[in-house]
Amino acid sequence: MADPTILVTNDDGIHAPGLRKLISIAREFGRVAVVAPDGPRSGMSHAITSGTPLRLKKLAEDNDYSEYVCTGTPVDAIKMGEQIVLKKRPDLVLSGINHGSNASVNIIYSGTMGAALEACIDGIPAIGFSILDYSSGADFSAVDDYVRIIIRNTLEHGLPEHTCLNVNIPAINREAIRGIKVCKQAKGKWEEEFDVRIDPHNHHYYWLTGAFRDGDTSPDSDSFALANNFISIVPVHFDFTAHHAVNDIRKWDFNV
Amino acid sequence: MADPTILVTNDDGIHAPGLRKLISIAREFGRVAVVAPDGPRSGMSHAITSGTPLRLKKLAEDNDYSEYVCTGTPVDAIKMGEQIVLKKRPDLVLSGINHGSNASVNIIYSGTMGAALEACIDGIPAIGFSILDYSSGADFSAVDDYVRIIIRNTLEHGLPEHTCLNVNIPAINREAIRGIKVCKQAKGKWEEEFDVRIDPHNHHYYWLTGAFRDGDTSPDSDSFALANNFISIVPVHFDFTAHHAVNDIRKWDFNV
Repeated sequence: MADPTILVTNDDGIHAPGLRKLISIAREFGRVAVVAPDGPRSGMSHAITSGTPLRLKKLAEDNDYSEYVCTGTPVDAIKMGEQIVLKKRPDLVLSGINHGSNASVNIIYSGTMGAALEACIDGIPAIGFSILDYSSGADFSAVDDYVRIIIRNTLEHGLPEHTCLNVNIPAINREAIRGIKVCKQAKGKWEEEFDVRIDPHNHHYYWLTGAFRDGDTSPDSDSFALANNFISIVPVHFDFTAHHAVNDIRKWDFNV
Repeated sequence: MADPTILVTNDDGIHAPGLRKLISIAREFGRVAVVAPDGPRSGMSHAITSGTPLRLKKLAEDNDYSEYVCTGTPVDAIKMGEQIVLKKRPDLVLSGINHGSNASVNIIYSGTMGAALEACIDGIPAIGFSILDYSSGADFSAVDDYVRIIIRNTLEHGLPEHTCLNVNIPAINREAIRGIKVCKQAKGKWEEEFDVRIDPHNHHYYWLTGAFRDGDTSPDSDSFALANNFISIVPVHFDFTAHHAVNDIRKWDFNV
């Protein structure tokens, strides 16, 4: 596709190094509009803001580039990017590069993937990128060629209707990356432990903490690919229907 | 199942009439613990709270009933209910009754279904209930027998692993309800329009509004069932993988 319009967002906020890396690569491909949250929105999933109004502020603009910061969630950023900034559907949405894994069940909590899925609902090809390093000092030096080739393929081939890509990148150096694997979402879950504390007024408060438990060793899962130094791509959609369960539940007796 | 432990939450907050209705029915089946947000959390999807601490306050307790109010999201409420209040996995999680539809693509934005899916990730049978009336004065008088029979079936049969139920109820009177249909998630989307206003300091602000566009007329969809005065049940899971797309994307040229 020649000179595509690309909308870029993230969930770590406008100042995150991962966003800057993704912007610099996106600009090689076409006209870029950035609409990113004004601060961290990790764990915001597919949340939207309807009870309070949203703000949007232009930070930069020239012929082939514009950059806006917004209040609200990553999904709000996509909606404002389409409706207010571009006033049309972009040709591609890129989200990330997230600081931290969105592989396995992490996708369901992820603001990065919330934004990509929102574009996907609107029929726009979208890719969420994440690197397996939560720190703001994550090393993105190995990622350029891989991010580029995934964007290039997506622009060239398009994506099946209502499908987007969840891309995760191991936090290792360029030479150690063994390539790209197209995978399925691994089974896994967070084991929560609340860190209980007592405030100066003698009331309890609770910090959500936890450890990720990866119970899936199937060789076609994203967790397995990442553990073996591959970049994982999972094509994802937003049909939550457990199709395999429909017929069994139809046999229940619903007579009231 | 005899004397099950049932955890109840919602996304409309502790004072919502829909929650009160669901509690009263749940108490017919077993011991009930309520952990619900302190105010509205509509549109919070699967969001979690990690950047700020959470609060939890006991409002009531006797032998077979306890009720807590919390800050945070519906998913946080499930985590606190399991880890702090019950200190074990309940036998069933009920979420709702939501004031407003969670049929079709609304499930992805829904805090009600976020809570049900969180239980589902933890391997707990879970049901999210919603009625198609956004008002706090929604009429729940028709729902009792239907909510009861869906809970009874779920306790009797269990649910397939990592599957929960998305139940939507038309806002019509008891006589007009034609029964229950087990369905697939309809295709549909929100067409956003931002309501742009100017504040007293002459800056723009934006209210997210929109109209739901239901493009799916397939007779096995939840939207179709509801439009025809049936209660819809969609069994849902949290595997986002677009399995049909995996092989096609494996054919892309990823050589860097």
